[in-house]
Amino acid sequence: MGFHDECGVVGIFGAENAAALSYFALTCLQHRGQESAGIAVSDALGAPSGSPADGKSAAQIKLRKGMGLVSDVFAADSFEELSGSIAIGHVRYATAGGRTVENAQPFVHSFKMGSIALAHNGQLVNHHELREMLEDSGCTFSSSSDTEVILKLIAQHFIRTAEPGKTRQERLLSAVKSTVQLIKGSYALCIMTEDTLIGVRDPNGIRPLCLGVLGGLKAEDAAPLGQGVGRNEVRPQGGTHPCNQSYILASESCAIDAVDGSFVRDIEPGEIVVIDRDGLRSVSAGLESRRQTCIFEYVYFARPDSVIDGIPVQDVRYRMGEVLAEESPVDADVVIGVPDSGLGTAQGYAGASGIPYVMGIIKNKYIGRTFIAPTQKERENMVFVKLNAIRSDLEGKRIIVIDDSIVRGTTSRRLVEVLRRAGAKEVHFRVSSPPVKFPCHLGIDTPSKNELISSTHELEEIRQEIGADSLAFISLEGMVKAFGADAFCKGCFTGVYPV
Amino acid sequence: MGFHDECGVVGIFGAENAAALSYFALTCLQHRGQESAGIAVSDALGAPSGSPADGKSAAQIKLRKGMGLVSDVFAADSFEELSGSIAIGHVRYATAGGRTVENAQPFVHSFKMGSIALAHNGQLVNHHELREMLEDSGCTFSSSSDTEVILKLIAQHFIRTAEPGKTRQERLLSAVKSTVQLIKGSYALCIMTEDTLIGVRDPNGIRPLCLGVLGGLKAEDAAPLGQGVGRNEVRPQGGTHPCNQSYILASESCAIDAVDGSFVRDIEPGEIVVIDRDGLRSVSAGLESRRQTCIFEYVYFARPDSVIDGIPVQDVRYRMGEVLAEESPVDADVVIGVPDSGLGTAQGYAGASGIPYVMGIIKNKYIGRTFIAPTQKERENMVFVKLNAIRSDLEGKRIIVIDDSIVRGTTSRRLVEVLRRAGAKEVHFRVSSPPVKFPCHLGIDTPSKNELISSTHELEEIRQEIGADSLAFISLEGMVKAFGADAFCKGCFTGVYPV
Amino acid sequence: MGFHDECGVVGIFGAENAAALSYFALTCLQHRGQESAGIAVSDALGAPSGSPADGKSAAQIKLRKGMGLVSDVFAADSFEELSGSIAIGHVRYATAGGRTVENAQPFVHSFKMGSIALAHNGQLVNHHELREMLEDSGCTFSSSSDTEVILKLIAQHFIRTAEPGKTRQERLLSAVKSTVQLIKGSYALCIMTEDTLIGVRDPNGIRPLCLGVLGGLKAEDAAPLGQGVGRNEVRPQGGTHPCNQSYILASESCAIDAVDGSFVRDIEPGEIVVIDRDGLRSVSAGLESRRQTCIFEYVYFARPDSVIDGIPVQDVRYRMGEVLAEESPVDADVVIGVPDSGLGTAQGYAGASGIPYVMGIIKNKYIGRTFIAPTQKERENMVFVKLNAIRSDLEGKRIIVIDDSIVRGTTSRRLVEVLRRAGAKEVHFRVSSPPVKFPCHLGIDTPSKNELISSTHELEEIRQEIGADSLAFISLEGMVKAFGADAFCKGCFTGVYPV
Amino acid sequence: MGFHDECGVVGIFGAENAAALSYFALTCLQHRGQESAGIAVSDALGAPSGSPADGKSAAQIKLRKGMGLVSDVFAADSFEELSGSIAIGHVRYATAGGRTVENAQPFVHSFKMGSIALAHNGQLVNHHELREMLEDSGCTFSSSSDTEVILKLIAQHFIRTAEPGKTRQERLLSAVKSTVQLIKGSYALCIMTEDTLIGVRDPNGIRPLCLGVLGGLKAEDAAPLGQGVGRNEVRPQGGTHPCNQSYILASESCAIDAVDGSFVRDIEPGEIVVIDRDGLRSVSAGLESRRQTCIFEYVYFARPDSVIDGIPVQDVRYRMGEVLAEESPVDADVVIGVPDSGLGTAQGYAGASGIPYVMGIIKNKYIGRTFIAPTQKERENMVFVKLNAIRSDLEGKRIIVIDDSIVRGTTSRRLVEVLRRAGAKEVHFRVSSPPVKFPCHLGIDTPSKNELISSTHELEEIRQEIGADSLAFISLEGMVKAFGADAFCKGCFTGVYPV
Repeated sequence: MGFHDECGVVGIFGAENAAALSYFALTCLQHRGQESAGIAVSDALGAPSGSPADGKSAAQIKLRKGMGLVSDVFAADSFEELSGSIAIGHVRYATAGGRTVENAQPFVHSFKMGSIALAHNGQLVNHHELREMLEDSGCTFSSSSDTEVILKLIAQHFIRTAEPGKTRQERLLSAVKSTVQLIKGSYALCIMTEDTLIGVRDPNGIRPLCLGVLGGLKAEDAAPLGQGVGRNEVRPQGGTHPCNQSYILASESCAIDAVDGSFVRDIEPGEIVVIDRDGLRSVSAGLESRRQTCIFEYVYFARPDSVIDGIPVQDVRYRMGEVLAEESPVDADVVIGVPDSGLGTAQGYAGASGIPYVMGIIKNKYIGRTFIAPTQKERENMVFVKLNAIRSDLEGKRIIVIDDSIVRGTTSRRLVEVLRRAGAKEVHFRVSSPPVKFPCHLGIDTPSKNELISSTHELEEIRQEIGADSLAFISLEGMVKAFGADAFCKGCFTGVYPV
Repeated sequence: MGFHDECGVVGIFGAENAAALSYFALTCLQHRGQESAGIAVSDALGAPSGSPADGKSAAQIKLRKGMGLVSDVFAADSFEELSGSIAIGHVRYATAGGRTVENAQPFVHSFKMGSIALAHNGQLVNHHELREMLEDSGCTFSSSSDTEVILKLIAQHFIRTAEPGKTRQERLLSAVKSTVQLIKGSYALCIMTEDTLIGVRDPNGIRPLCLGVLGGLKAEDAAPLGQGVGRNEVRPQGGTHPCNQSYILASESCAIDAVDGSFVRDIEPGEIVVIDRDGLRSVSAGLESRRQTCIFEYVYFARPDSVIDGIPVQDVRYRMGEVLAEESPVDADVVIGVPDSGLGTAQGYAGASGIPYVMGIIKNKYIGRTFIAPTQKERENMVFVKLNAIRSDLEGKRIIVIDDSIVRGTTSRRLVEVLRRAGAKEVHFRVSSPPVKFPCHLGIDTPSKNELISSTHELEEIRQEIGADSLAFISLEGMVKAFGADAFCKGCFTGVYPV
Repeated sequence: MGFHDECGVVGIFGAENAAALSYFALTCLQHRGQESAGIAVSDALGAPSGSPADGKSAAQIKLRKGMGLVSDVFAADSFEELSGSIAIGHVRYATAGGRTVENAQPFVHSFKMGSIALAHNGQLVNHHELREMLEDSGCTFSSSSDTEVILKLIAQHFIRTAEPGKTRQERLLSAVKSTVQLIKGSYALCIMTEDTLIGVRDPNGIRPLCLGVLGGLKAEDAAPLGQGVGRNEVRPQGGTHPCNQSYILASESCAIDAVDGSFVRDIEPGEIVVIDRDGLRSVSAGLESRRQTCIFEYVYFARPDSVIDGIPVQDVRYRMGEVLAEESPVDADVVIGVPDSGLGTAQGYAGASGIPYVMGIIKNKYIGRTFIAPTQKERENMVFVKLNAIRSDLEGKRIIVIDDSIVRGTTSRRLVEVLRRAGAKEVHFRVSSPPVKFPCHLGIDTPSKNELISSTHELEEIRQEIGADSLAFISLEGMVKAFGADAFCKGCFTGVYPV
Repeated sequence: MGFHDECGVVGIFGAENAAALSYFALTCLQHRGQESAGIAVSDALGAPSGSPADGKSAAQIKLRKGMGLVSDVFAADSFEELSGSIAIGHVRYATAGGRTVENAQPFVHSFKMGSIALAHNGQLVNHHELREMLEDSGCTFSSSSDTEVILKLIAQHFIRTAEPGKTRQERLLSAVKSTVQLIKGSYALCIMTEDTLIGVRDPNGIRPLCLGVLGGLKAEDAAPLGQGVGRNEVRPQGGTHPCNQSYILASESCAIDAVDGSFVRDIEPGEIVVIDRDGLRSVSAGLESRRQTCIFEYVYFARPDSVIDGIPVQDVRYRMGEVLAEESPVDADVVIGVPDSGLGTAQGYAGASGIPYVMGIIKNKYIGRTFIAPTQKERENMVFVKLNAIRSDLEGKRIIVIDDSIVRGTTSRRLVEVLRRAGAKEVHFRVSSPPVKFPCHLGIDTPSKNELISSTHELEEIRQEIGADSLAFISLEGMVKAFGADAFCKGCFTGVYPV
């Protein structure tokens, strides 16, 4: 409840109205970013195939992006201009400094080899070094975004890979591979040229990216893509797919469901997926890859109906609740969860502890970007507009409340206040993540270390600060147990990052 | 999931920034109407008291209203223009025919006695007769709303009650009483003159309206208002309240919570509450009153954190679930509820049946008024953007799904489709209201009788139509049992209406 | 340059796309008001004729209005909703107090006899008395506009004229006549019911209103309308026109030109023109009528291409310039006019004096409603953004500058400053209206008497105040001479008003 | 009347509220482009001077740009974010293909040496070659604009000029000089870094650019800038100006007037003006320079109150009218001009011929970007909404009408129609430019050669096509005579271009 993710991405290949499908998919990724939205589209597939190897395509990439929700940026008439069968889309959470349309994505640049569009979820740790390097070579930047850095790296390598006998597509792929060698950090990328869609996931797979097929095809039909498809056990290297197939790439599988697609598998850490007229090919970036998915994707960011790297989000939330119940039991009358991410965990806690689950808290879903506090006095009371307690669930009761995290502590203190106001006799605070002690440099907007309450305060101090009767965090071991695996970035708890 | 309520209302008296408080309260009533929003405000209390009896007040009622959400209509600078300590506000769900700003509320009219503002939740059944009567007397109407009819009736009676010795306030109250004698149907009214706030609830109390105090005062402090305050057992006739008190009237108690107010009690059926410089007075409209609250307020419209007529909404939803479990048990693996109103019922069913409650379904909260379907083909798929299933909760399982109602059947069929797509082995549909066989004429937007699937189809036919493995509705008796009382309008089930 | 007119009106009858034609006409009347715009339309003519005498028409009057320019309020899709062959439209200049959409016109009210829409240019002097009278009879008002008063009077009389044998149209006409007996002041009205368009002009004809035919018909074809049509010499009483004809009413003839119509004649003072399925009938309001057209319509408000009451606006401006040259000659090098209304007068002065006319001043045409002065300091300099001098026309020269009026004197002082800055050696200020000493109560927004510089200062004082080398106003006699007639309201010069 | 210019530019240095002054100036350049507007601003001067030589400045360039008029893009609160004392601004006319915010100017890019902002009026003829060259070196482009090409060239040269002993400012200037060596075509540039404003005009001076001082200083005080300042006779090489001075660069001198500045002189063809903390320096680009100002700036684009390259626009329009009267006399009753550019020429013709000048035509000034034609039928009639004739000026008369040019002939034909409809007996068409036979490649949006009526038709054919009684164009010689000089690009008449 105190974190913000940076983005959601989507890519569509081979569907009649790619922009409209992207619009639907982005609407289902909107929880990942509400500050800006954009879609880039190409109709090269429908156009007569006049793109010679090494030459520029006649098709153009059209772009529409703007500040606000997906439904603010796109109107019914937007889609007439955005005709085409290949598209990428993006929703963005923007940090305070960069809330300008210049930083909205996708970025579309044209260059020697044609046009390239890029949508990025994640954050580069060597952004400044790469930007400096590009600046040294004469590059100029129209934004402050690290996404523009990635785009320029791809473009430069694309140009420079002019070897005899190499086709345009080979050069493009080579450029993406070279770029991936250079960039460090977290990245799930949807890359588009006039006639090609490419998905890339960083070697640690920190940000999620998954693949689906469209148009009534089921995942089973997509079997040639890899062996044992659908559960990612097998790395589908170099598989080629029949053409005339439509594909979708998305940050979360719920976006595939939204367009009635069938989930195929997650993009592997360090995998590059190229989709063009010849079908789908999977290529390794050639980097040492080790899955280290951001654990907060499960804890907080992702929609409960998404499955990331084979782990259903809601399922693991239940299990975290079960672990919390084991680790930090307490005698109480009801268990409640803080919407939306705390609900599953609370249900899991309830199931394991036998203490009844009740709703207990309502989150106002009409609090959007434009919601304002007319005066300072009102600003203080806004907590009650955002959150309210269900008195009949809580009055006179001992309550266990589950939240996904405690960051600064402010929100937690207010939450306890809301519960007490509704007559809670005892408030036992349980947190489905270990204490967050370190800021994230891989795509999550966290405050600095000295603002993280778990970094500066002991457990008992935090309990007093938030006014709870008891407080417990899930243990790191417990968390790993809940996941049944340990392939996650847990840097914000441990200070040890994969990058 | 197939109904629409007409409105939410709020009234504030004696608070420094009445418009801002109304804004917060309306944001918490936004679920009752998303088509238009408005606030009318007066600063008469702050102005030098120069309103002579029987004369017009110098103060003016300022108004701002428009199409869209509360947060669309009001911007930070709106509140500078809307200074004042008395306000009423309104959010509206508009039926297709009247989606124009001319029908947005509050209505503010000026007339012989000053200005009057009105916000109305409900629907008059003798609207056309009253309008004709007023038209016969020469009235013209700038809208097609029955709210304008009520406003004009009050104004006309206000003017005509000029008896010697009667004060302005006595005449106003007399006018409201006379109006209430004339209008039939459902109405929860917030009425405002330059210096007075009045709340009225129809003799059957069909639409809810409750009272709170603001400014740190607790409900206990408000005791003089009646004997046994807080649970409505006692009718607080004629009680007068100390002045310098700040009050709030609202359709639902969650709006009182939003401004950190304290719930005092519900307005009684047929009660008129007058709040002015002299405090609060409760007056009977002098009609035979019998509580017949719209039962769908509990089943569907109200927020779970609201308490209506002493019955906590969420609580009764749990109990309806329990009754459903008793009445229509079925062997299954999980129970799920259709958000948002089906959740509590599902939790109640789970508790009573011992079958585990899981989340199962996600409703996209970013689907607003401006969400569009670019093409016809996309329109059909929009169901998956609006609703998605959590596969890990459902795959291979026998599912009990609880919805609040079945109206046309279309939504239910799509819901079953969504669940089956996610791998549900069996889908057992349970409905927390009896079959809706009759349209509502008291404030709910229902289709005509021959579009109501329960009116035209037998149970088994409906089951087949929606594609469920089994289907059951709660019985009327069971519903009454869940409520522990029988003071409700159940016209849509029985065809017997209180009016 | 210091006055503001209140409005422009248009009415269309019998044309296929009446709203679109109104849009064009209003765009050509936009100079009369830029604060709000609106169009009301009915498709009764196209609908099956089901409007029984004394019964309500099945057709409805649709309305769209809003704040801003005509082109801001209407978009391409507005006209789909506004289908119909009868329409009235309005553009409005709003005084500071009433800049709300509630006061935007047309007003559309429904009542016992159906619906009525009204667009009004002018101002009632007995507005408050009539409003009080209506309030006494129980009327309520949703605006502060005197237009609503007129609408309600018509409606009330319409209802009350139920005499045996009288048709609906006879009753409507009777109601309009009765209303005209009651209202005093200036008014040019376009009135619309579902199937009828009515134009009315006050007995003094203070605000202009003229008639045209549409659809390729020429004015000559319209002869039956009156004897000696086209120049208004003859009062066309009771003439009936063949049906299947399309008509336009408009504040100025330039709006008739805009829709490729043919000007027929001005509506006479005190005339009521009724247009319905049976054609056009002209009826006298039965009041003593004497033409007293507002002389400022010619001096300032009207477009130069309009002809009002038989006098071409531009023509009379030339002649006023000639008179000024005779009355107040001065030795100078060039004559310039203040755009836009001073140009014709300057050209007339130049012609008569033999002193060359040059352009000399540029008025920025992109200064609209949304133009802002970021800070106070910039606000002072905004005069140079609004007006600039052409140095090559003025440098080192003795200049005669013609403006239409001096109101407060502020604008004139700034104008002289602009000219001096551009190198003018001498500035001789000539004004094409006599000193404005009295405020207008008939539709022009003037400051109060003590803010009118001519009311508080002598000629020489004014000259010093504005910094001119010489100053002269046209004499009242000279003005009358220029017009070749004396049928004008000159109240702002003399304090003697027709009403 | 058939041409469109590309842009207007402004630069402000050393003024407290540079963005607000730019806003005013752009409002006065709005006639040069109404499609998009933008302002970039830096507060480096106010910030502590921490920009080391060769290092990046700490200050940032803030940017706001968008589609629409200046007054649409900027609101009162825009200027709080845009604080700073150095700014550049741009208004743009966009050709159909590129009406997207991506092409709106100024462009702001950051790169190795800091940030650079660029506003460009003109068009490069070697745009594609330069773009290709930059693409070869790895550059990517976020727009299709040649302005981005110029910006990148400056940036690349800036980076590469790292010679020992060279200061940052020397390197910047060197980069601009090198860029100017590469680009060919027409360009008036306002370039901004965090602490420097640079103005550049192409070696032929095709697009105008002039210099003024702000803050009460008069042009005389600015004398050190050059010898014989104010009329451009002398090339002010290397002059340095005292600092603490505020400057303005603008496409037209009317923008200098708008901010109460004093015109100093035009930027010379091939001149680079650098303004920073050390004052103003003028540098030659080192190219062979020959003034070849676009003659259409005088004929059509520029505001009459502007002075370009020492020639007052309005003055030369008068003289062109005089020449036309000599060359193509005709017996007629009145002379009229097509607003706005034809007015001065008509007045000149009238003066020379002795035939009276009258206004005759009105152009609707409320026809903006959002003006629409609801249906096809209405579209045809829109000519009468845009233009109307003053019947009293024209009826029964032989008319000479002066327009600035004939491009496709369509507009001229409609104009003649408008005049005939108003009763003109004869229409004699005179054109203040020679026949336009060749398209422009230097910044004016012209149709292709075969759409230019003078390229495909003989004089007599054109006369018949437009329906005039006689037709004459000014001769090239006559035009030169009117200008009293021959330093102009006349490529659209002759096919001979300076570049």
